[in-house]
Amino acid sequence: MVPGPELLARARLLVAPELSASLVREVERITGRGAEPLGDGEPAGGPLLCVGAALPGALRATAADRLLWFHSVNAGTDPLLAAGPWPAGALLTRTVGRMGERIAQYVLGWVLAECQNVPEYAAQHARAEWRRLPSELVAGQTALVYGTGRIGGAVAGLLRSCGVRTVGVGRTARTGAPPPGFDRVIGAGEDAEVVAEAEELAGARWVVGALPSTGATEGFFGAGRFAALRGATFVNVGRGATVDLGALEGALRGGGVRRAVLDVLAEEPAAPGDPVWRLPRTVITSHSAGITADEDVAVDFAACWEAVREGRRPGLAVDVGRGY
Amino acid sequence: MVPGPELLARARLLVAPELSASLVREVERITGRGAEPLGDGEPAGGPLLCVGAALPGALRATAADRLLWFHSVNAGTDPLLAAGPWPAGALLTRTVGRMGERIAQYVLGWVLAECQNVPEYAAQHARAEWRRLPSELVAGQTALVYGTGRIGGAVAGLLRSCGVRTVGVGRTARTGAPPPGFDRVIGAGEDAEVVAEAEELAGARWVVGALPSTGATEGFFGAGRFAALRGATFVNVGRGATVDLGALEGALRGGGVRRAVLDVLAEEPAAPGDPVWRLPRTVITSHSAGITADEDVAVDFAACWEAVREGRRPGLAVDVGRGY
Repeated sequence: MVPGPELLARARLLVAPELSASLVREVERITGRGAEPLGDGEPAGGPLLCVGAALPGALRATAADRLLWFHSVNAGTDPLLAAGPWPAGALLTRTVGRMGERIAQYVLGWVLAECQNVPEYAAQHARAEWRRLPSELVAGQTALVYGTGRIGGAVAGLLRSCGVRTVGVGRTARTGAPPPGFDRVIGAGEDAEVVAEAEELAGARWVVGALPSTGATEGFFGAGRFAALRGATFVNVGRGATVDLGALEGALRGGGVRRAVLDVLAEEPAAPGDPVWRLPRTVITSHSAGITADEDVAVDFAACWEAVREGRRPGLAVDVGRGY
Repeated sequence: MVPGPELLARARLLVAPELSASLVREVERITGRGAEPLGDGEPAGGPLLCVGAALPGALRATAADRLLWFHSVNAGTDPLLAAGPWPAGALLTRTVGRMGERIAQYVLGWVLAECQNVPEYAAQHARAEWRRLPSELVAGQTALVYGTGRIGGAVAGLLRSCGVRTVGVGRTARTGAPPPGFDRVIGAGEDAEVVAEAEELAGARWVVGALPSTGATEGFFGAGRFAALRGATFVNVGRGATVDLGALEGALRGGGVRRAVLDVLAEEPAAPGDPVWRLPRTVITSHSAGITADEDVAVDFAACWEAVREGRRPGLAVDVGRGY
């Protein structure tokens, strides 16, 4: 629900303590009021507008009916939504920022690093060894990108600039021309598309997961999908819970998955003894692909503020029921 | 000089022994005649059409006046031209193939690998260490690309698709709009442009060498240019002789050059004891960036053949005096 102008004018601004001083000043400037700390205690009276990463307990309990709007400094709001029922009627918006661009450069960076043997050349160099390794030209290869939203679209668009054929897999098939960045889009949930997806998986050189974590996506990359692969490299920039790690390990050992690059895990950070570190031909990159910068938060919050002031639902509003 | 139809019809086809059987068949098909081996002995009489990498001694000496046309399977023809005077009147053409695309992907691969800490994450993974490293977004950074021809243009175009501002440095300044792939082009040889080049070097995050080896480019990347850098990474995909390695070493030690990626060296292959392996923060990639495939040779030779048959000078003809 979009808060009305009168309530918004009276709302207290609460900001999480982890926000930088400069970001707090920017949020104060945008909203035209001073910020108070978002903490565990009961906030003073009146409607509330919050900016932060997590919702303190009091705002879910006694003060829930006063929460007008929570702006998340992160793109993934699943931890927020998983921590308990979302206060009824409270608007939830999120920061996407240049995340699409950042994640796209992450994916292309790891794709090209594999094609150009970056780790292997670094190792050869350390041994003072001159040996030409065959590089791969990605042009003409196929990448399946799971997720056809802002992130998936940005990933596909950048891969395509290197001549990669991009196939998006979304919740449902689409009619008409595929969205920008994609050569083709198929629906993962549709019976009629199961064969198409399996064929594309078999022909894919790259499979990129860019799915949000919802009930429907848990273990989405499981034995069935991995069994269809014929030597693709799997890159996950979505959420760790979308991957069945046991199934991935089997596919890595069997060769169906050539390599894996995992930015995200279901349990983060991975402890030093976690068996995930022992997956063959895998690199884990510590959830670094889509870091949001202060500037991203300020720009996206300002856009949401403008929409709300005009009575519009912001484009960055989260569908709390769907989960993203 | 473009060989006339009558001479071309009578020419014997000589192919170097290192060509694959399938490539030889393709060249035979294109020219409509059987191939003979290109070797050190005196070839049988009549005009000659050769496809290979090096010109045997007899063709420079006693049979030089019979050489109509030599098609190089490589893009860089400096070893051919440096080995002795080029037979007067003989057409020299070369294979560029998808070299621009290949080299562009090489450059972007190493650029993004650095931004995404690919070698560092591989090392962290081996230690089972979860630690987020700050990645760099290349969008908005500046790359200077030396060489504004097919290779330099392809490199610039691909960097630009990631939002990089691309400045080309060519032999001469150009008037009018910069060529495709470049935001700006300046002339390295022009007094009026010296300040502009120095300013761009100081602001550059990336400096890419894509220069041919000619008398004019030897040691081109020397103390003067390296001294202007303020932390750029230097990537050389042109020729090794264009770099003064002593000056590069000084700039690496002083910090003006952040890292170096050298695909090419003046003396290849580098022996295990070569001091070049001990340059700090440098990776040498064994002249692998622009490997030409059989398909590249066949496609480019066919295009040259068509042009010659029509009496046109092929676009891939080498200006023997200029050296590329």
